Amino acid sequence: MAEASDSPLVLLHRPPSLTFMDEILNRNFRILNADTSSEPLPIFLDRHASSVRAFVVVGRLPITAEILSHLPSLQILICTSVGINHVDLAECMRRGIAVTNARNAFSDDVADFAVGLLLSVLRRIPTGDRYVRSGDWEKLGGFPLGSKVSGKRVGIVGFGSIGSVIAKRLEGFDCVISYNSRSEKPSIPYRYFPDILSLAANNDVLVLCCSLTEQTHHIVNREVMESLGKDGVIINVGRGSLIDEKEMIKCLVDGVIGGAGLDVFENEPAVPEELLRLDNVVLSPHSAVATQGSLDNVTEITLANLKAFFSNQPLLFQVQFD
Amino acid sequence: MAEASDSPLVLLHRPPSLTFMDEILNRNFRILNADTSSEPLPIFLDRHASSVRAFVVVGRLPITAEILSHLPSLQILICTSVGINHVDLAECMRRGIAVTNARNAFSDDVADFAVGLLLSVLRRIPTGDRYVRSGDWEKLGGFPLGSKVSGKRVGIVGFGSIGSVIAKRLEGFDCVISYNSRSEKPSIPYRYFPDILSLAANNDVLVLCCSLTEQTHHIVNREVMESLGKDGVIINVGRGSLIDEKEMIKCLVDGVIGGAGLDVFENEPAVPEELLRLDNVVLSPHSAVATQGSLDNVTEITLANLKAFFSNQPLLFQVQFD
Repeated sequence: MAEASDSPLVLLHRPPSLTFMDEILNRNFRILNADTSSEPLPIFLDRHASSVRAFVVVGRLPITAEILSHLPSLQILICTSVGINHVDLAECMRRGIAVTNARNAFSDDVADFAVGLLLSVLRRIPTGDRYVRSGDWEKLGGFPLGSKVSGKRVGIVGFGSIGSVIAKRLEGFDCVISYNSRSEKPSIPYRYFPDILSLAANNDVLVLCCSLTEQTHHIVNREVMESLGKDGVIINVGRGSLIDEKEMIKCLVDGVIGGAGLDVFENEPAVPEELLRLDNVVLSPHSAVATQGSLDNVTEITLANLKAFFSNQPLLFQVQFD
Repeated sequence: MAEASDSPLVLLHRPPSLTFMDEILNRNFRILNADTSSEPLPIFLDRHASSVRAFVVVGRLPITAEILSHLPSLQILICTSVGINHVDLAECMRRGIAVTNARNAFSDDVADFAVGLLLSVLRRIPTGDRYVRSGDWEKLGGFPLGSKVSGKRVGIVGFGSIGSVIAKRLEGFDCVISYNSRSEKPSIPYRYFPDILSLAANNDVLVLCCSLTEQTHHIVNREVMESLGKDGVIINVGRGSLIDEKEMIKCLVDGVIGGAGLDVFENEPAVPEELLRLDNVVLSPHSAVATQGSLDNVTEITLANLKAFFSNQPLLFQVQFD
């Protein structure tokens, strides 16, 4: 576009449907959109992007050492997600590439959604909706009781910006909050459990909102679910692989746990067939961040970081390499 | 039962499925269960119940002057519901029959459910659940955005025990609360609107939790919905007839309002065919009170009121005749 011809070049990769920041980026930068090319990505990068210094990744394209090897001039990788388990951080560190994420942009929406899933599972809202729509209410009458929400003990796994907002929401329901995270946080007024097994044993509901790392992969295994117990409910707004999905399905079918509310899956958008038939689960198409408000937030952060980068100002939400 | 043969006689009417307080009532009183008889109710009452002084009504059997005429000795009518629009209060007053309701027994559960419906509609949770279960997520990908919950302006219609708990819950979501009720309540920190039209004009969501009276029948009419506007959402956990249901369906179909979460209907359990096909509504089989916790509460209140009545102690939650 004419008004941006002198603007810095920015590489963009996004799923075809996620066009929400195209317009504002095009207004401010020369955008090289990897998605509009029919070439394989490495060839596209070699041909067009070898001089690119800034790369915006919307979605979860794996940013591997191989991809990075095609971008020798890259200095900043802007991820529009909160989780960055799709990025080879060690390789970014080795190459001196700064990485930023969306930090708090989605916290309110993800927390709202986590509480929505919790209410939906305990009070059987989507199941009730199906019951009415199928005509069963008129034909069969009474619908099974739900489970009381107020007073429930809720254990939050990962007490970052999302976890703390979930706790604030659930306080209004008189829920009893406790948490597990890498370390105890003295400023937090809730009971801390140093391991997820004791968190599960002492709660009615587990809410997963930690990041996916080698340490948290399958953090919810069969033992944790047995510990949570037959009326226990799991809510997952983190990543699918936080749970051993195969074991969870067995536990849901056999009544080892009571139910689950799942916004994420191990192999999404593929969801195991058995889950689709269960009435004690609420399934969601990775929607926890999906509001216009969240998209506006992340667009704003991306734009601010690109402007900061090209004018040598401090970045927002830069990821610290361990 | 032997241990109760000297106990006072209590008449009980309940839907066949609502057996939850049978056992404890039978343990304490001689229960005359109108539901187990195949006779028409007036004949049953004339034959068995003319000496009955206490009547427990679980559910919404219309307690008309005609029914009351078959119970000349009746002194107390214990309703296990909060709403008592099924009772001819004027006739009870004329006959000197005390009436009690469930007052706060369900407030927490109904408030939880109202917030659950609000989250379900705005964040499209049951619609997303259908999208995943149908296989559309895997086939078609992306699911439409939901609407942000935090920061929404929510107008509560009827600020009694349920409305105040809903407000407390929604404060945790940083919602902006206002309300309408018969009169302004100086102790309430929220903005008061003297009429529902101005409440609708100044809010994104209306939550109905007032009782159904002649004054509140169809309180949500077309004008109110036009005032609420095209992104507006209505949540109803009160009674179906608070809304002009026919007009609401037109407004939902034509985009005059954005969506609705409905636990009650004008002619339930019959639900208008057109509603069953809409994706911007969440439908629920009158489940807002349906948890074991609520049933335990109302059983306890019923038992306490029967004991109080038969020992001339003050009643709990006696309805004041205007």
